[in-house]
Amino acid sequence: TSSGVFLLQMGWGDLGAFGEPSKETPNLDQMAAEGMLFLDFYTANPLCSPSRAALLTGRLPVRNGFYTTNGHARNAYTPQDIVGGIPDSELLLPELLKKAGYVNKIIGKWHLGHRPQFHPLKHGFDEWFGSPNCHFGPYDNRERPNIPIYRDWEMIGRYYEDFKIDLKTGEANLTQLYLQEALDFISKQQASQQPFFLYWAIDATHAPVYASKQFLGTSQRGLYGDAVREIDDSVGKILNHLQQLGISENTFVFFTSDNGAALISAPNQGGSNGPFLCGKQTTFEGGMREPAIAWWPGHIPAGRVSHQLGSVMDLFSTSLSLAGLQPPSDRQIDGIDLLPVILQGKLIDRPIFYYRGNELMAVRAGLYKAHYWTWSNSWEEHGKGIDFCPGQNVSGVTTHTQEEHTHLPLLFHLGRDPGEKFPLSFASEEYQRAMGHISGLVQQHKATLVPGQPQLNVCDQAVMNWSPPGCEKLEKCLKAPESDPKKCSWPH
Amino acid sequence: TSSGVFLLQMGWGDLGAFGEPSKETPNLDQMAAEGMLFLDFYTANPLCSPSRAALLTGRLPVRNGFYTTNGHARNAYTPQDIVGGIPDSELLLPELLKKAGYVNKIIGKWHLGHRPQFHPLKHGFDEWFGSPNCHFGPYDNRERPNIPIYRDWEMIGRYYEDFKIDLKTGEANLTQLYLQEALDFISKQQASQQPFFLYWAIDATHAPVYASKQFLGTSQRGLYGDAVREIDDSVGKILNHLQQLGISENTFVFFTSDNGAALISAPNQGGSNGPFLCGKQTTFEGGMREPAIAWWPGHIPAGRVSHQLGSVMDLFSTSLSLAGLQPPSDRQIDGIDLLPVILQGKLIDRPIFYYRGNELMAVRAGLYKAHYWTWSNSWEEHGKGIDFCPGQNVSGVTTHTQEEHTHLPLLFHLGRDPGEKFPLSFASEEYQRAMGHISGLVQQHKATLVPGQPQLNVCDQAVMNWSPPGCEKLEKCLKAPESDPKKCSWPH
Repeated sequence: TSSGVFLLQMGWGDLGAFGEPSKETPNLDQMAAEGMLFLDFYTANPLCSPSRAALLTGRLPVRNGFYTTNGHARNAYTPQDIVGGIPDSELLLPELLKKAGYVNKIIGKWHLGHRPQFHPLKHGFDEWFGSPNCHFGPYDNRERPNIPIYRDWEMIGRYYEDFKIDLKTGEANLTQLYLQEALDFISKQQASQQPFFLYWAIDATHAPVYASKQFLGTSQRGLYGDAVREIDDSVGKILNHLQQLGISENTFVFFTSDNGAALISAPNQGGSNGPFLCGKQTTFEGGMREPAIAWWPGHIPAGRVSHQLGSVMDLFSTSLSLAGLQPPSDRQIDGIDLLPVILQGKLIDRPIFYYRGNELMAVRAGLYKAHYWTWSNSWEEHGKGIDFCPGQNVSGVTTHTQEEHTHLPLLFHLGRDPGEKFPLSFASEEYQRAMGHISGLVQQHKATLVPGQPQLNVCDQAVMNWSPPGCEKLEKCLKAPESDPKKCSWPH
Repeated sequence: TSSGVFLLQMGWGDLGAFGEPSKETPNLDQMAAEGMLFLDFYTANPLCSPSRAALLTGRLPVRNGFYTTNGHARNAYTPQDIVGGIPDSELLLPELLKKAGYVNKIIGKWHLGHRPQFHPLKHGFDEWFGSPNCHFGPYDNRERPNIPIYRDWEMIGRYYEDFKIDLKTGEANLTQLYLQEALDFISKQQASQQPFFLYWAIDATHAPVYASKQFLGTSQRGLYGDAVREIDDSVGKILNHLQQLGISENTFVFFTSDNGAALISAPNQGGSNGPFLCGKQTTFEGGMREPAIAWWPGHIPAGRVSHQLGSVMDLFSTSLSLAGLQPPSDRQIDGIDLLPVILQGKLIDRPIFYYRGNELMAVRAGLYKAHYWTWSNSWEEHGKGIDFCPGQNVSGVTTHTQEEHTHLPLLFHLGRDPGEKFPLSFASEEYQRAMGHISGLVQQHKATLVPGQPQLNVCDQAVMNWSPPGCEKLEKCLKAPESDPKKCSWPH
């Protein structure tokens, strides 16, 4: 059975099926109607790089090294001056799937390190079309190079130069390119009866948000909605392609997101986390609870809903299971095999851990969520207008100083209070009971935790995308400045 | 064609189909899947009595008299010491439907005045099972009598005495009684081939929230969710009954709410307004945007969604249209006939007016909403913990003083910003264009507005439910105190 993972930067509340009031995602809504909707599904981190590393390794970022210790409880990712990336010691999903004869392709943003040793084709992927970093820019190629786009081993151009994004109008045809890549890849594997793993990790809903001309201005929601509509249309086309080729019953497809909607980019470039608190960068529900849909016609009965606490890391274990493989036994894997949930409607008891850096900020078990630390961002940043919780302010919860609650965690019941607005009374019997259980889980988790070497501590202007492989052929090599390694600055 | 209106106190975000994360409303979700979901549907006031008066008269509360002038921009309703009620000069939907031979029944809360002249059977209803006021209590029957329950002309008991509500456990079997009343009424009309209008206005999700024993503890959402589940189950049974009797294709059914979820009662007794701002009592979207579903098998194609700006007042005009009747021509009717929307998918251009008392607080036209006044509640109330926007705080918008913006209204684009968090720049071309249009609508509205005599100004302890008709038979008549009419106090 082949696997497809759509990993898109969208918030829980961005899909019609999840209550977005413009209801402009007919294809994703249909995917949900034909498959299983996960309402309690989480990413592994409120930021992109660590979540992606977790998805592909089945392990929490604190284990696989995708975190920083430069400051307490800081989010970190892989900008182009990052020195680190995915360690060779990590076993990635495509590496393992290869053993079962899979062909693996990543389309879109890799984000697990852009230096040569971190190249996705060195970590199990057979093909790549996309970029190693976010499509920020345009840059001047002197202070900072524009981000390259790769085809397989080599770059084939750069954003804003060869792959245009018009920041004024928001126009870019990149989603169409990524769609075509997916359709072609699927056709090729179907023709050769090859099992495959396709990781479609495109970036149109990540600021700077973009959409193709035919989608511009078509959404009630502005440019962000245009991008969502184009992605929705593309997902529909990919699923339809699988059906047309007659391989939909042999292809497990999963849709989810790597972090909550970036409310800081709202209203024009940011999405919606529905009824949840705050957004990307935070360990409140809005930062890590994600839309999620499993689709596998003929196997998943239509119209199912699951309250399984799920995680992007489960896609690692589930995809291995589909390939008839066991997860590695020489290391801790945080993902679980969701097939019993998806096929038999089982509910597997497991906690969700919410981290910033190597600090365990919160834990969810059942319907309870305990916050051991609260923080949105600093007063200093907040004063500059950087707001991860616009319009929201829960006293003592969305704090602008790092507040420690390890001795008396803030506890929420996410069924009665999905918005994390009403902490339970410390004196209540319910608090005592729930915290007793959660404390045990946390002790157990911490006792066995072996943190990986932190990969996101050091930045160096010399490692930026000056001269990626293939640049010579294109005459696009740039001169790197002298090496000047520094601690990366992670303000939040 | 018969009509059924479910009017339930629920928030936009309380249904699975509208993104409630526990997704516990399978029957309402199925009703939506088989019918038409309205995503931009409004009540006529952020409070119950005026909304109900508007639904039944097709007219804004400021026209039909369901407002107060005791203070500026105050919400008012009909507690049991209210002197006023629905004026005889108003023509109610059941009065008009009678002319077409309909039998009309109200089940649940009337709320249009409890003194004899306001009795629903004097205003067109043929049958009544329910209460004139909210089910607050228990009272001591000395300072304040318990609220009566009527069957038709006479009371048959009182809340907390004959109709138990256990405030500790939340147990009450009232929804089951109201369900049985509905099923029996429908059976009777079907047997006599009688067109009917059923107004099912039950109160289990209004604080004090209650549910039957079999539903208690079954929801992830606590007691409020238990009540929602029981109502959802009841709606399913009523729709199923229509189908079993073979009259579903001759019965137009509409589900909606009289105000947004009462966030002040959250988390245990209050619901969810999804991604919208604030709740009941406010003219933000959370206060007045409602879940809405039209169901009419064989006429409405399954699975439709409409972005028509709709109003509870449209149920007046639509029900008349279904009965082949014209709305009265001697007065301004604010409702519109939704049949072209429902049957042909048309979109009718019309504004939505948001009032508190006789003050026009805001106007929606298309995707734009202009606030002429902003207020949540006073600092004094807020300081006592009365919060209509818990966890939400939009600077300059959710104000605790009444802020006038009539010369430069705050403008929001509800497509890009459904949460009313990011006012448009006053200097933008978009602002100028949208406000030019809205100003015209407001001028036109105000120029033709003839306010009704305000009904909700005077309160008197002597008019409470001391001795409702029928009390003698039950030996439940209580002695009224001396008349002492006063201005009612409306703090917000």
